[in-house]
Amino acid sequence: MLSKIKVIAFDADDTLWVNEPYYRETEYKFAALLSDYLSEKECINKLFEIEMQNLEIYGYGAKAFVLSMIETALKISDYKISGQSIEKIINFGKELNSKFIDILPSVKTTLEKCQNKTYKIILATKGDLLDQERKLRKSGLEQYFHHIEVMSDKKEADYMKLLKRCDVAPENFLMVGNSLKSDILPVLKIGGYAVFVPFHTTWQHEVIDEEEFLKFEHYHKIKNIKEVLNLI
Amino acid sequence: MLSKIKVIAFDADDTLWVNEPYYRETEYKFAALLSDYLSEKECINKLFEIEMQNLEIYGYGAKAFVLSMIETALKISDYKISGQSIEKIINFGKELNSKFIDILPSVKTTLEKCQNKTYKIILATKGDLLDQERKLRKSGLEQYFHHIEVMSDKKEADYMKLLKRCDVAPENFLMVGNSLKSDILPVLKIGGYAVFVPFHTTWQHEVIDEEEFLKFEHYHKIKNIKEVLNLI
Repeated sequence: MLSKIKVIAFDADDTLWVNEPYYRETEYKFAALLSDYLSEKECINKLFEIEMQNLEIYGYGAKAFVLSMIETALKISDYKISGQSIEKIINFGKELNSKFIDILPSVKTTLEKCQNKTYKIILATKGDLLDQERKLRKSGLEQYFHHIEVMSDKKEADYMKLLKRCDVAPENFLMVGNSLKSDILPVLKIGGYAVFVPFHTTWQHEVIDEEEFLKFEHYHKIKNIKEVLNLI
Repeated sequence: MLSKIKVIAFDADDTLWVNEPYYRETEYKFAALLSDYLSEKECINKLFEIEMQNLEIYGYGAKAFVLSMIETALKISDYKISGQSIEKIINFGKELNSKFIDILPSVKTTLEKCQNKTYKIILATKGDLLDQERKLRKSGLEQYFHHIEVMSDKKEADYMKLLKRCDVAPENFLMVGNSLKSDILPVLKIGGYAVFVPFHTTWQHEVIDEEEFLKFEHYHKIKNIKEVLNLI
């Protein structure tokens, strides 16, 4: 079906391995630390608000998340939060970076088979360069990728740069990922192909309506990553 | 002299623009915040110790620096540091990221002339992806570079990966930078060419003895970046 594809890019977090649930779990621990000041829900909403304010300056990843948690804790507690609690927040971040990498079902065999088909396979992820390189190394999946592209964001212009660096035209490019907003829509808009593999947990910053995708001919939705093999 | 060069990579911080002095300035402000607990010198030494402990997990850049400052402040003050002081440390980081980019003398004309000579010019920097992309954009120098390579570290293996991605052999590769440890030694060791342009301020993590470089034929030292043009 997608006969012209030369480069296949896979998103990493929640496409190849579990990520978002660890962040959600950390948010609950963070809210518990601040339960004297605000309800769990209000606390998490305030954190999201601060994260969005800091997005341009901090970008994505665990370090950005920790800095926004500390800032939120200071605001919520009116600077009364203890030094011990700040230390706990710093340790939440270190724990996130030392998590075991839980690879999603069928990922390994899918990558193996894609590789046999002589596509150039790359990993295209946004977030913190060091965090993502560490996860890839720990995952044992490094061997399947020609290289890793850590992008500071995943908007149309970022994908255009990626295509330029890979020297590939949009119609020869396929992106596989779990975020409609970051992996699918910008790629479709620049004329590339995109395969959406939903994951059960999505960060609210990444949520958009699926409706508008149906108009794109280059859009595919699958349930399990192995179905990519039926498309290419 | 360096007639076989096809790709020239420039380091960014303190090679193209001022960076390290801003970090040193921030360290003094940090030490002033903690002057009730420790002397300036002891405070800065303790910070360096914590930064080195965190290097593997945090990498380089402003966010890593801020997280290590907060951790150091908690330790030095035995958790007594005020919430207001923690907020000040967070703001030190935000200020670092919003600094005016002070381009070093002759950089612009040197890049212009290198570009005319049809080399592929890239920017090879370690640190935080988002910080470095922002600085490049603000510098107005983006147009001179084929692309930016943000590396999580600058060791031999990292340069090998860079060469692979750029599809260039070591003997056709020239690196220009201000850090003997990160820009020069690893490149010489893998057989590439390296030009050292010293800067007046060097982070103690980057300091190594210059003696051992004299044995490398591919090693050059210049005083001003424009002298690169006499070598190529």
